[in-house]
Amino acid sequence: MAQFMDVHHGMKGITADQLREAHQADLAIEKDEGVHFEKAWADPESGTVYCLSEAPSAEAVQRIHERAGHRADEVVPVPLTV
Amino acid sequence: MAQFMDVHHGMKGITADQLREAHQADLAIEKDEGVHFEKAWADPESGTVYCLSEAPSAEAVQRIHERAGHRADEVVPVPLTV
Repeated sequence: MAQFMDVHHGMKGITADQLREAHQADLAIEKDEGVHFEKAWADPESGTVYCLSEAPSAEAVQRIHERAGHRADEVVPVPLTV
Repeated sequence: MAQFMDVHHGMKGITADQLREAHQADLAIEKDEGVHFEKAWADPESGTVYCLSEAPSAEAVQRIHERAGHRADEVVPVPLTV
């Protein structure tokens, strides 16, 4: 398992409820791909959302996001952490 | 205090030691601006680094990163978290 940071643009005006619902939609199906979404951070003003996950691959992360209705613009492996 | 995610590009080939040293350089001076860098994630292949901080402003985050020798390409406030 590796860690990934993925980024969504174009989420201007996202509310706390919408972020929670989107995250719940990921959590509901993440096991199908062996993914776990750990955390998400959002900026309603620029419309940017960052999601941190553990997953077998970037493709697995993207498949969950796509099925949940919010494809990521980038999924970046982050093997180094401090 | 608010949370910020900042992003650095162009860090291709960054090692675990270099990430730790860069983070330490931030920690050494962060109090001057009331900033705290909580965590950083890096991808040596694409050269991307994400840093999560608590700070009074995006400008304060950038001032610490600049003085530490690694200006961020973006500093995004992330008021929503899940």
